[in-house]
Amino acid sequence: MPLADRRPLRIALLGCGVVGTEVARVLTSDAEEFARRIGAPVELVGIAVRRAGRRRDLDVPEELFTTDAMGLVTRGDVDVVIEVIGGIEPARELILAALEHGASVVTANKALLAEDGETLYEAAAKAERDLYYEAAVAGAIPIVRPLRESLAGDRVTRVLGIVNGTTNFILDAMSTTGAGFADALDEAQRLGYAEADPTADVEGFDAAAKAAILAGLAFHTRVTISDVHREGITEVTAADVRSAEEIGSVVKLLAICELDAEGAVSARVHPAMIPTSHPLASVRGAYNAVFVESEGAGQLMFYGPGAGGAPTASAVLGDVVTVAQHRLAGISGVGESAHASLEIVPIGRARTRYHVAIDVDDRPGVLSAVAQAFAAHDVSIKTVRQEGHGGDAQLVVVTHEAEDAALSATVADVRELDMVRGVSSVMRVEGVS
Amino acid sequence: MPLADRRPLRIALLGCGVVGTEVARVLTSDAEEFARRIGAPVELVGIAVRRAGRRRDLDVPEELFTTDAMGLVTRGDVDVVIEVIGGIEPARELILAALEHGASVVTANKALLAEDGETLYEAAAKAERDLYYEAAVAGAIPIVRPLRESLAGDRVTRVLGIVNGTTNFILDAMSTTGAGFADALDEAQRLGYAEADPTADVEGFDAAAKAAILAGLAFHTRVTISDVHREGITEVTAADVRSAEEIGSVVKLLAICELDAEGAVSARVHPAMIPTSHPLASVRGAYNAVFVESEGAGQLMFYGPGAGGAPTASAVLGDVVTVAQHRLAGISGVGESAHASLEIVPIGRARTRYHVAIDVDDRPGVLSAVAQAFAAHDVSIKTVRQEGHGGDAQLVVVTHEAEDAALSATVADVRELDMVRGVSSVMRVEGVS
Ligand SMILES: NC(=O)c1ccc[n+]([C@@H]2O[C@H](COP(=O)([O-])OP(=O)(O)OC[C@H]3O[C@@H](n4cnc5c(N)ncnc54)[C@H](OP(=O)(O)O)[C@@H]3O)[C@@H](O)[C@H]2O)c1
Ligand SMILES: NC(=O)c1ccc[n+]([C@@H]2O[C@H](COP(=O)([O-])OP(=O)(O)OC[C@H]3O[C@@H](n4cnc5c(N)ncnc54)[C@H](OP(=O)(O)O)[C@@H]3O)[C@@H](O)[C@H]2O)c1
Repeated sequence: MPLADRRPLRIALLGCGVVGTEVARVLTSDAEEFARRIGAPVELVGIAVRRAGRRRDLDVPEELFTTDAMGLVTRGDVDVVIEVIGGIEPARELILAALEHGASVVTANKALLAEDGETLYEAAAKAERDLYYEAAVAGAIPIVRPLRESLAGDRVTRVLGIVNGTTNFILDAMSTTGAGFADALDEAQRLGYAEADPTADVEGFDAAAKAAILAGLAFHTRVTISDVHREGITEVTAADVRSAEEIGSVVKLLAICELDAEGAVSARVHPAMIPTSHPLASVRGAYNAVFVESEGAGQLMFYGPGAGGAPTASAVLGDVVTVAQHRLAGISGVGESAHASLEIVPIGRARTRYHVAIDVDDRPGVLSAVAQAFAAHDVSIKTVRQEGHGGDAQLVVVTHEAEDAALSATVADVRELDMVRGVSSVMRVEGVS
Repeated sequence: MPLADRRPLRIALLGCGVVGTEVARVLTSDAEEFARRIGAPVELVGIAVRRAGRRRDLDVPEELFTTDAMGLVTRGDVDVVIEVIGGIEPARELILAALEHGASVVTANKALLAEDGETLYEAAAKAERDLYYEAAVAGAIPIVRPLRESLAGDRVTRVLGIVNGTTNFILDAMSTTGAGFADALDEAQRLGYAEADPTADVEGFDAAAKAAILAGLAFHTRVTISDVHREGITEVTAADVRSAEEIGSVVKLLAICELDAEGAVSARVHPAMIPTSHPLASVRGAYNAVFVESEGAGQLMFYGPGAGGAPTASAVLGDVVTVAQHRLAGISGVGESAHASLEIVPIGRARTRYHVAIDVDDRPGVLSAVAQAFAAHDVSIKTVRQEGHGGDAQLVVVTHEAEDAALSATVADVRELDMVRGVSSVMRVEGVS
């Protein structure tokens, strides 16, 4: 049977903003190639938006647009629903309704998956439909499929990700130009790399959502954004960036998901110093990368653009091809699994290393007093060096791995020491083996 | 029904060498975790080897071993056959028999796939069974799945891969120590990074097989190893490596698959200079990486260990989990597609850039004579600089993109020029935009 005569695969698009516009553009302009790849013609049956009359830079028939998203997903003849509205509601109820009405779903919605992925995964399993979400983590970079499938026969032990382009752009600019956070943020906003309200990015909320999704995939365990310890980059100073350089490191905002020695999961987002020799250190500008360590494969890294309309649409459309092929074959892919149900440890119990710059009086005994404060909490010091003299004297300490709670208690005690004038920089150190 | 009571999934392993030993070890020692991930217990029903009585560093019952590989794959109750024997025969007939007898197949056999993948893909489609081969390209690095699935909604335009660890180790050593090829090869052999007979690696055969597989996946076109132009690294000199440094580049053996302006495919393996700022330039030692450019996603890179027992087993076992899940669900995944059937262009028509170091007489007119030879073939020069003086005088030319045939004809003509004493280095330049 010629391709064109086969029953078309019907697609509904929810949302036509940055990502949705690109999805609609490629689906319509490249329809023939999609038909060949999927094995049937594709038909875009409707596009749900909030504002109906808005001018859109898109060459599709006006009558496809609707503000009745719920009507679109429940009309009953839709094979695949693409959700690129974002946010929790109405995205959640639309996805659930789509699955109930027999559609498979592709979504880019990290916020929703990190908040309540479980409800969606269960609904998909119950409906025997696919729920795919490659675009939800690190945009165009294939990372969900590799974790879910390629590494399914291995044991992942750690995931370190640069998963937010805005903060990576800002930190990179701080490191290149020596600027402080505020100036680098201004520059990022001017160039369109940061939004007018940059909170979700710079406070680490976006990265934390991705960390939750990555930890769940890597460790076969239910992890939500509330399980993720989160610190943003607003407190990172030009001095921190310089301190990092002095120990041959750079500052990155990392999403960290790791198994501790007891087999429990730590999921956290915070700025950290990593050695310039680490593959993540050379991830510049707004690029993203995810570094994965596993027992069998060793060290893997996945690198690429983490956002943007076209890159994100590429990830969405890859999922669309897969779920479309599944629909035509009458099958659904294998769903999520939280079979391991590992414990999730609070940040205090996570094992990390600290870099601490301490402004001190330049007199005998200061090093021993500081060293004693570390020892009192069983935190062992890896290196310590003195910088400057007199009023500029500074001790720079890098610790061995210890529980985060012990490290932060140590810093609190150090601040109280007589000969200490202040602690000018505290930052975790990652990516050291 | 408790997991342990479900019908077990029966696995036959063909080959128990570097990769097979690791596969058998993990499958048996991690059997419970595999059962949870797959949804049924796994049972290793037999291991085919060439030499029966050989001592193996593996804790499995002696009676699992057999030298009758064909008997094992045709016994009729095997769900998944893992082929890690390598080579063309008997691997091909074993895989075909396995598919015919109802098993899905996972293989790491790049040589066979690059020689005759088509026969295998067709047999799998006919048998409605899976044929997965993530381990065949770049070992543990997930690259087959991303190309086959994640990028299925995008148009890949170029793949540049460092897909052979031995040659990358040697070139990296040459660049770090200034050694020549022979010394660096000795060192690689001493450290176990190169085999006693290094031909397959240093002459580029291994990389060419991977290039054929990558090009087929990226461009939905049938590509075999005989379509791939191949040059190894045996001719790379310490002077080439120094010349690369002088233009801010490093020498890498690249597998290159790209679409030209007419939409035809060029697949080739050769050493090339790439700028140190290119993400592939920092791939050190025996690591592999594959850099992918596509219309939507932009630039992606996948990095990790390209060989070794445990990493390769990780890739094999990820495939095993997928095909096992498919078997239990009574489905098979979506197969290969060569629907695009693009033309494959010979190396002469590929568009590349050359770096040429020419030993010349240090007299007026030499530059103009050389420049004229380039112009005569319509090759435009990007930069030219003179190095040294008198008997050491050298012209170093970097060209713009031109057809490879025109470039090599130019070099041939330059060699004949009166004022030219010799051409001491000719190398292609890649990764420049
Ligand atoms: N942008 C990126 O680079 C990127 C990268 C990765 C993932 N994502 C994810 O992709 C999703 C979409 O992001 P985006 O940047 O494309 O967002 P956006 O530009 O803000 O677009 C949102 C779209 O949803 C529509 N919409 C909002 N509320 C709606 C409702 N109640 N009913 C129907 N339509 C509604 C809007 O309609 P109007 O056009 O009428 O306002 C708009 O078309 C989010 O989950 C985001 O996290 C985005
Ligand atoms: N090694 C790597 O790092 C790597 C990486 C990626 C892909 N691969 C691919 O993986 C495959 C296996 O590589 P390898 O390094 O594991 O090879 P290997 O160490 O040479 O092992 C080959 C195994 O196959 C067995 N064998 C050979 N001929 C046989 C026959 N006619 N019937 C039954 N068994 C036979 C051998 O039996 P005996 O033990 O009795 O000799 C041996 O156990 C190859 O396709 C290779 O290209 C390897």
